[in-house]
Formats: sequence, structure tokens, C-alpha cells
Amino acid sequence: MEELVYNASHSLIEQSRAARFTSHLTNADGFGIGWYGTRDTPGVYRSVAPAWSDRNLQDLCAQIESPLFLAHVRAATGTAVQQTNCHPFRHGRWIFVHNGFIDGYARLRRDLVLAVDPELFDRIEGTTDSELLFYLALTFGLDDEPLPALERMAGFVEATGRRLGVDDPLQMTLGVSDGERLYAVRYASGDVANSLYVSNDARDVRELYPEDARLARLSDEARAVVSEPLGDLPGMWREVPPSSALIVQPGADEELTFAPRPPAG
Amino acid sequence: MEELVYNASHSLIEQSRAARFTSHLTNADGFGIGWYGTRDTPGVYRSVAPAWSDRNLQDLCAQIESPLFLAHVRAATGTAVQQTNCHPFRHGRWIFVHNGFIDGYARLRRDLVLAVDPELFDRIEGTTDSELLFYLALTFGLDDEPLPALERMAGFVEATGRRLGVDDPLQMTLGVSDGERLYAVRYASGDVANSLYVSNDARDVRELYPEDARLARLSDEARAVVSEPLGDLPGMWREVPPSSALIVQPGADEELTFAPRPPAG
Amino acid sequence: MEELVYNASHSLIEQSRAARFTSHLTNADGFGIGWYGTRDTPGVYRSVAPAWSDRNLQDLCAQIESPLFLAHVRAATGTAVQQTNCHPFRHGRWIFVHNGFIDGYARLRRDLVLAVDPELFDRIEGTTDSELLFYLALTFGLDDEPLPALERMAGFVEATGRRLGVDDPLQMTLGVSDGERLYAVRYASGDVANSLYVSNDARDVRELYPEDARLARLSDEARAVVSEPLGDLPGMWREVPPSSALIVQPGADEELTFAPRPPAG
Amino acid sequence: MEELVYNASHSLIEQSRAARFTSHLTNADGFGIGWYGTRDTPGVYRSVAPAWSDRNLQDLCAQIESPLFLAHVRAATGTAVQQTNCHPFRHGRWIFVHNGFIDGYARLRRDLVLAVDPELFDRIEGTTDSELLFYLALTFGLDDEPLPALERMAGFVEATGRRLGVDDPLQMTLGVSDGERLYAVRYASGDVANSLYVSNDARDVRELYPEDARLARLSDEARAVVSEPLGDLPGMWREVPPSSALIVQPGADEELTFAPRPPAG
Repeated sequence: MEELVYNASHSLIEQSRAARFTSHLTNADGFGIGWYGTRDTPGVYRSVAPAWSDRNLQDLCAQIESPLFLAHVRAATGTAVQQTNCHPFRHGRWIFVHNGFIDGYARLRRDLVLAVDPELFDRIEGTTDSELLFYLALTFGLDDEPLPALERMAGFVEATGRRLGVDDPLQMTLGVSDGERLYAVRYASGDVANSLYVSNDARDVRELYPEDARLARLSDEARAVVSEPLGDLPGMWREVPPSSALIVQPGADEELTFAPRPPAG
Repeated sequence: MEELVYNASHSLIEQSRAARFTSHLTNADGFGIGWYGTRDTPGVYRSVAPAWSDRNLQDLCAQIESPLFLAHVRAATGTAVQQTNCHPFRHGRWIFVHNGFIDGYARLRRDLVLAVDPELFDRIEGTTDSELLFYLALTFGLDDEPLPALERMAGFVEATGRRLGVDDPLQMTLGVSDGERLYAVRYASGDVANSLYVSNDARDVRELYPEDARLARLSDEARAVVSEPLGDLPGMWREVPPSSALIVQPGADEELTFAPRPPAG
Repeated sequence: MEELVYNASHSLIEQSRAARFTSHLTNADGFGIGWYGTRDTPGVYRSVAPAWSDRNLQDLCAQIESPLFLAHVRAATGTAVQQTNCHPFRHGRWIFVHNGFIDGYARLRRDLVLAVDPELFDRIEGTTDSELLFYLALTFGLDDEPLPALERMAGFVEATGRRLGVDDPLQMTLGVSDGERLYAVRYASGDVANSLYVSNDARDVRELYPEDARLARLSDEARAVVSEPLGDLPGMWREVPPSSALIVQPGADEELTFAPRPPAG
Repeated sequence: MEELVYNASHSLIEQSRAARFTSHLTNADGFGIGWYGTRDTPGVYRSVAPAWSDRNLQDLCAQIESPLFLAHVRAATGTAVQQTNCHPFRHGRWIFVHNGFIDGYARLRRDLVLAVDPELFDRIEGTTDSELLFYLALTFGLDDEPLPALERMAGFVEATGRRLGVDDPLQMTLGVSDGERLYAVRYASGDVANSLYVSNDARDVRELYPEDARLARLSDEARAVVSEPLGDLPGMWREVPPSSALIVQPGADEELTFAPRPPAG
């Protein structure tokens, strides 16, 4: 984890200080990492400190090895800076990170909360729009059909927005994983979707830079999905187009269209 | 504030380390003070640190003078240790502290949240039962009829509890103020209600201890309402009986019966 | 305090997010305020959170009225983000804030610490170069001769630097007050000194903008000393030149040359 | 780690709430764990929150597996509650925890600090007596001769105490490790030394309780060294006598007399 979180030239730590592509220059309202280890349940470490000044994070990234992890730096959009509002959110095997917001959240929030499965209701610990998106996805079947559930979640938020006078409620790139696969989505109700990048096939990248020692260590299946490229190496990163979903998995990855599914009726 | 929060022999700071009368020996999951100053809106200072180690609190208590303030030390009963879960909670002119819990909160929470006035819904910032009691009281008319609103809140929680299989859901001593009056309630659905004490009339106390310099400084209207007496001076404190409400106000204070009002139908 | 800390167009809160004139774009490694109230000792409130997200700060600035206060946002230069490293530092009636650093601090630190009056040694609570400058100034006579003591402190740091191979050790703008006067210094051992501004005479400013309601409320003696102007109003701010000291006091303020005094021998 | 930190009947988490044998009922001024993993340098996680409410700690203890770790809950004895004052302290391969205090620390501190190797001086990050003991031990040769270095450290502190009028300056049980061995010391200058226990040989304990599934999982070399037993199982724990040092190591452990070595001259 150290390699990606700290050592890359435009690492996540750098992005906590100064992101390049987003409206929030500083992402200093907390951060978190979620990782899969030897247990069934993933580990989560979250803190309200700016990522750059958290000494524990340095140690954890140096010590923990994981085949699949999510990391997030937060720029709050109105809700409190507290650990329960930091990403990733976790439920069972699932962890979830979100870059974006629900426009008109104050207006939509109650209706969205009411739509969460009553069995899941009490598991919501924070107050962010992001956590709510996660619990809506769980409500709409994330366990059984991940991408359709995410599409139903998006469709429900948009339908609720339209009903309550918010035209384009959804701005989201998100990453969600069950430990086997990583699902990454880039979508916005309006015209501009937050950026999303994926590293190119490790075999191709190594061939491109045969003398790069760091790249030589990458396994064939190594893949990074990021809001912003972690460096400037030409040929390293590919932009994921808006309204699409990426499945990173053992074997060939998949890229699909992402289309919100409005609720029936 | 310094006098009561720090200097009393069994001060609130001492109670954060070791309360005598409650089931939670240690009240170290955050604390808060709310005070009325020269502004319309009261000030609130809350922190997740144990009260005894917070250096800012020492300074604030030394610097701030206020004719009416509430202070609280928290022992969490399941919800996260975060500032938004610390008392006092504030809404407009009102501040609110609670010592107790809702039994079966996980089961009752969703129904209680749904009963909050949709206009107020988005003002709930934390996840405690205590804050929810406050917003239910606001929903049931705290602004216009403080004590009846608190009785309706208690009646609603008890009715919801019975409906969902929780016999005695409410354990509460609470303090709530609008800056003019302090309303203190001692009530439990079951047999045992958390303790509540009020200091005796300052004139009587001074007469009892004519040579006590600290007591000599008390104004005629000085009054302290506490979960546990701040010292052991005989004649200083009087227990407020269960199922009663105390109104501390300019002129003579009042003590009334507190009886939950179940919702109609 | 609210007016200056929050409401100005380029307020201190804005500067915590994005300072304009300094090398540290983000000043999010804690903050603090120190103020003189009705007690002999000033109050201090410090926190490691970024100033923009601290809710307590908002309340304190809204509630506390003070004729003289210092506020600071920190960008750490190597030492830990912790409350004891946040400015202002306080000793008796004195509070002290510093914008800058000691170059080669790791090399110079031990010798500087050893020069602190042994009686004061145990009062050093943090590990910053800034707090050490304060204790050196106290050691060199701040109580009796404020400006000469600051000049001796600067001279001692420079002599120590030269002895240990650090040519230009000192970069500092600082503010220090005893509650009666504010001493502000702009100095650097090298060519470039951090910026320092002072608001122009309130009478002149009001005359310049006779219709500005906010300025109309300023008393004749109102004065703000800042690292960066709090707004863009022409005629409002004046740059304090390098190597100078400003004394803001009842009656006419003074501006003097600031020249480090090397230790004798 | 989860087993020992959380699941034992009188686990460290319980001891953070209510220790049985020490003068500090509550150890809620922060905590820390240090562990050896796959890297040369041990990992350290420290936090100022009470151990019982730290959610990250739960995750880390569940996820991290380590053959050798130290854990500590802190009750501050005057110095600030901040991460740099939390144990374990780390230097290179070494981690260090201490239960106790230096009597008259304010008086002795400067002389002790001055005795720290100037090369190490700048590595001191906090202000505790405990960290200072660690850096003195490093100064006196911990790397090369661990126990003699600890004895020289103790001798130096006692000599300094006597010189400055503190008769019995040292109260300490401590644990220090280089990843290969754990050195545990129980010593006090005065009559009463803080408690120290070690678990009995895992083979003997398993024989004593042949049906205990948890004990069955213990390896032959499993050993716990604690301030207070983690449970009440008869035959499980043995008290380490005062003025002794224990070396837990591959193969047979050792128990030696611990005798402070005063500085020559």
C-alpha cells in the first residue's frame, strides 16, 4: 500500500494536499483505507486528520500487505468531519468509497433514508450522502447483482431528485468491492462527471518501460483505479468514459455501460 | 463556570473520572458545555476527549461568564464517540442535555426518526438516542409548551416501545433551556430513575454556613441542577423525586409532576 | 472576533485553506486563538483540526468579545501536529504567535533548548521552533524589555546558526502581547522576509469609505496586524517593511527598526 | 492480537476502563501498540482516544498477525495527552513501553534531557518521563547490551534524583524489544514496585487445562508479559519479583536480578 499511497509522484497523499482535476483543491477532511487481509471481513482504518499528517497511516501502509484495497481522501460538502463520515464504508464483505455528492442533499435526504431497508437502517453510522448511496445499493441488491443494484440506486436517487425539484442530483465516481472484484463507476446526472482513470495492463506497461524497476515488480493482474493518475508516465493510464462501469477481477476485466434504472411505476 | 465545573469537591471533572451514583463509573466519551452569553444564540463547546484532559475546557471555563449554562459528561451506550454525539444539542435558542438512554434503541430508532418533523429532520447531526429525544420534543411543541412537549415526547417513545416489544424504553434525566428558564426532568419508564438533585435556596444555604466565603458570593437566584451533588455539604442539596419536572426561572422556581402523554388514538 | 476570523473576504479561515503570499498554500495543521478577557491571564483555544472545520471555533468567535486577540493557522514544518505545537503559546500574561521557521532546526535545537532559562525549561510543552523562540525571548528579558529581548533572541539564534553551519537560520514574522501592547516583528536572516501588514488608522479608513457600515463600527484605536490582508479594499492595508517592529498600543503606535543583538563575546 | 487485547476476561481494553492493581483506576489518556511484521522496522499505532472507544484499534487487532507485539494503555501523570506521548516509543528496531513515572520529573527533567546523546536528542518527540527513559537507555548502550544499558539508565536517574533532592525517583515496569527478544523489567527506587506478571510455560498450562480450546492453540513458545493478569485462571500467571528482569526469547527464557548501575565517579 505504501507504494501507491505515499511513493507515487502524484500519490494520494499529494492529492490530499492538492488535487488537480477536482473542484476541491484540498481533500483534508479525513481519509480512510479499507483492505482485504486474511480474515473474511475487510479491515478499515479511518481518521479525521488530513491524510498527510497522520503518522499511523504511514505505519499501516508500510506494514499491511493486501491484494485488494481502497483508499480515499475526503473533502466534506457540508456534513461533519467525523470518523463515521469517512470512507470507506463497510458492510459485511463490502467496502465502498465515493467521490462526488448528491445535489440538494438536505432536501432529498429524508426520502432517501426512508428507502433504506429497515433491517439496514440502524447500520448507518454517519450522515453523508455517500454512506447513504452505499446503503441504498445494499437495499437494492448489491449482494446478488452488484452493477444492477448500483444502477437501481442511481435511478432511485434521480427519480427522488426529480420529484423534489432537483434536476441533476447525482455526481459520482465510486469504487465498491466484495474482496473478489472491484466495481468502479463513473457517472453524473448532469453533463460533467468526476474523472476516473485505470492503469493499463501491467504486461503492456512493463513492455513500454522495460527498465523501470518498480513496474517490473507489478504482477500481471496488478491494476489501479483512481480519480486522478498517480503519475505522469505516458501510456500508464487510461480515462474511463462517463456513464460506464469497470469490473476489475481475476482474469480479464470488463467495462460496461452504466445506466441508472428508475424505480418501476 | 470554573467554580462548578472544576473547583467543587465532587465537580463535573471528577464525575467524568468516577461518578458515584450511576451505572457508568467513567464518563469519558466526550463532554460539552452550552452557555448563554450576549448573543441571541447560546454558545456550545463540545469535544470527544475525556473532560479531565481537555485543556481548552479549562480556559473556556475560566474565561466565560454566563448567567445560565449546561454541562455534560458522556458515557456512550453504543453510538460513536464523535462531537455530533456530544451534549448539549442545540437548536435556535434551545440547548439540551440528557443522562440516560432509550432501551431497545436499535429497534425503535427508525420509527422515532420518522416521527421527527420533516422540516427538522436534516438538523439531526448525530446518531444518539439523546439528540433524537430533543428533536422529538421540538417536533411536539417545545417552543410553545415546553413541559407538555417533553411529556408528549416521553409518551410517544413509550408507545413506540410498547408497539415494538420494549416495555420500559425510557430512562432519562434531562435539562433543557431557552436561556430564560431551565427545565429539568427526572423520569423513567421502569422503576428506577437516574438521580437528579437541585441546590437549595441560596439564601437558606448562606444562612446555614454564614462563614463560607464561596457561598457568600452566590446571588439569591443562584441554583444548580445536577445528576450528582457537587459536594457533601449537609443542607446544600435536595433530591428531585422521580416523575417530576423542575422549572428554574426568575422568581420562584416550580416543581411539577411529569407524566408522559401518549399520542392520541 | 467573528468579524475578522470568519467574515472578512480573505479571512483567516480562508487563509487556512489557501494562503496567497506564503510558501504553504494550505495552513491546515491546527490553529489557535489567544485573547484577553476579564481575567489577568489570557484565554487560549488551540486545536489540531484545520481551522475551517472546527465547529467550536465558530462558536467561540461568535461568543467571545475581546479588545485584543491573536489568531494563528499552522502549516507544520516537520514537527508533530498536536495541540502543544499550536500557536499561540502562553506564559503568564504573554501570548505569542510566529509565522516562519528556524532553518536547520534539527541541528540547532539542542543548543537553543540549553539556552532557555532552567526555571522556564519545564514549561516548554511542545517541540516547535516557534515555542522555543518564545522561551528564548522570555529568557532574554521579554517581561522587562520586550523589543530588546526579541532582538537578543534573534541575535542568539543567528549566532548559534553560524556556529553550527546554518547561515540564515531565522525566518519570522511574529506577534507577541502582554495584553496592553502588541509587538509585531518582521525579520529574516536572509533576503526574503515573510509578509506583514497592518491596517491603516481607523479614522482615515472610515473617511475613505464613509458609507461602509462595517468600517463605521471600528473604534479609533482599532488595528489589525496580519500576515496577509483580510480583504482587497484599497487604502486599507499598509505593508510593514522587513527588519522592523511595530508596537500597537493605546495612543499612537510606533514603528521601529528591528536589529538582532548577537550575544556578547 | 485480538485475543489478548480484546477477548481476554480482564483484557487490556478492560484495564483501560478499570485497572485493578494500580493507583490509576482509569487508563484512558491514550494507548498504543507496536508490532513486528514482515518489515525490518516494527509498526506502531498510537492514539489519544481511550482504548475502549477506538474503532481502528479493533480492526487492526483483528487484521494484524504478529509473533511479537507490545500494547499499552496510558494514565497521564502531568504531561499532555498527545500521540507523541503515547507508548510504545520506537527507535530503529526497538519499541519501548513503560508503566510508572519519575518522581520529581519537573525537577530532574532538564538534567536527564541533557544526558541524552546529542545525536539522539532531536528524535525525542514527546515530553514524557517514559520516552526520556527510553532515550537514556539508548544513550547508555541499549543496542549492544540491553540489560546493562537499562541498569545504567536506572542508575543515572537515581543518581540525578539524589543530587537534586529526590530520594526515590524511579517507579517502573517496562517492556522493550528489538523484535528478537523481549526484555521486561520490574523495579522501583522505593519499597513498592508496580506489578508485573508472566504467563507460565504454555506446555504446562495446556496440561493443566487439557479441554480449553483457546489454550490448545498456544504454541510452545507463547508467552505474555503483563502489568496485570489477563484472567483469573489458576496456574496461568506468575508474578515477576521486584528488582528483576525477564528475557523472553526463542528457547528458554531467562530471569535475572536487575540492579541500577550508578554512573562512575
